[in-house]
Amino acid sequence: MIALLKMMANEYSPKAVPALIGSQRDRIIQNLTGCSDPYYQLKNKANEKALEMFPDLLKKVESIPPSNRLRMACLISCLGNIIEYDVPNHNADIDAALWELDSHGFQINDIDELKKLMGNGVEILYLTDNAGEIAFDRLVVQELQRQGCAVTVAVKGGPSLNDALLEDAEKVGMIDEANRIITTGSSAVGVNLSEASSEFMETYRSVDLIISKGMANWETLTEYEAPCPIMFLFRTKCEPVAASIKTPIGKNIAKLVKKGWKL
Amino acid sequence: MIALLKMMANEYSPKAVPALIGSQRDRIIQNLTGCSDPYYQLKNKANEKALEMFPDLLKKVESIPPSNRLRMACLISCLGNIIEYDVPNHNADIDAALWELDSHGFQINDIDELKKLMGNGVEILYLTDNAGEIAFDRLVVQELQRQGCAVTVAVKGGPSLNDALLEDAEKVGMIDEANRIITTGSSAVGVNLSEASSEFMETYRSVDLIISKGMANWETLTEYEAPCPIMFLFRTKCEPVAASIKTPIGKNIAKLVKKGWKL
Repeated sequence: MIALLKMMANEYSPKAVPALIGSQRDRIIQNLTGCSDPYYQLKNKANEKALEMFPDLLKKVESIPPSNRLRMACLISCLGNIIEYDVPNHNADIDAALWELDSHGFQINDIDELKKLMGNGVEILYLTDNAGEIAFDRLVVQELQRQGCAVTVAVKGGPSLNDALLEDAEKVGMIDEANRIITTGSSAVGVNLSEASSEFMETYRSVDLIISKGMANWETLTEYEAPCPIMFLFRTKCEPVAASIKTPIGKNIAKLVKKGWKL
Repeated sequence: MIALLKMMANEYSPKAVPALIGSQRDRIIQNLTGCSDPYYQLKNKANEKALEMFPDLLKKVESIPPSNRLRMACLISCLGNIIEYDVPNHNADIDAALWELDSHGFQINDIDELKKLMGNGVEILYLTDNAGEIAFDRLVVQELQRQGCAVTVAVKGGPSLNDALLEDAEKVGMIDEANRIITTGSSAVGVNLSEASSEFMETYRSVDLIISKGMANWETLTEYEAPCPIMFLFRTKCEPVAASIKTPIGKNIAKLVKKGWKL
């Protein structure tokens, strides 16, 4: 508590970026407890449960007309952001949750605009969020690659909350799905460009399109000018983030911004 | 927020006294906002509402056998600690709340022990808590003085949350009720002996008995060795305080400790 209060006292300001303070918080906890990956077991459990659901979800996407598949894959990917992985009768819950998601759909829906940017040879950087959820991201990556895009998937470079690492990408089959897997080069929450690896920075600066999954990537990428079009795909799970994108809490967002955009 | 975080980072420790940190918090807010008494309007409203209820509560006490009156007055005084002063139909609510209080009674009830300490010429220091509530404390003070005790009532020496000040003691008639009124000499939450006036300290050290009302007085007096028997009269309104006296939350406490006691 003392270490966290001292850090907060030093770092907090009206311009502070919560996710960056969150990274510092996590590093203090890791250092003081000696536990480098406090979410390790939770991430494994989430991966296992998500993998159990994956075949049914894949069938769901492939059972609908091709023109609707990207939207459905994106919805399922948002679903991965909110489900409880330890619900016993998960199949019923997935169906209910999917039905619920589908009936609500996206509060902001730029997926038709996104489709216009897709095509043969288009290079995409896909920034993942949590373990477990990364299994569902495979469905989006698959649809993008079916349209001829080359997708580089980025996971975190070190333990960061319950975010996906290389080992999670491997466990859920994302390594086989994506054209290429890289890491951010950092354990920072979201994306902290000042800590990113040169491999990540080269990809970030050269791709035609970025797909940014989850709230933490929104919270951090909005600190920079968009280096190319960015599709922000997330669910508004807290008031400050919901307010920042001017929607209520608990909504699905698919917001496409242009190169040069800044919040 | 920055000023509060810096204060917390400096002051927090496993041995920190929450009420003393609370005093520092309030002083920072008073200094930065330039508002020396942020609870002024709330206190006035609480005094007015409590005064409206006072005649009925006095009748209630005087309608029961004398041997039970002190217990009833103490219960009503605890009630003052929890009622919502802005409930429109307050009479119905008081009756319901009193019935509820009476049926639950005291989780710790040392009132019979307290009675044994009362008698002609016994000097008592009564430490008040909130404005509004101080009107109900009159009923306890009245009962004590009927037994021949001389009661000195202490209010805070300066604005401290919604605690009663001299002006509140005057508004609710406590100045006429008590044998003597003093202040703690400080705006500290609860009792901070290092900030107390010499008048307060002389009374604190010389009386035969202290009656300490409310959680903040419990939180702070427990830092010192009891200078005489102390009757702690409060309701457990938060988990840490409830845990410190080993009762559940939401209970009425009338705990008598001996001279020399320390938590």
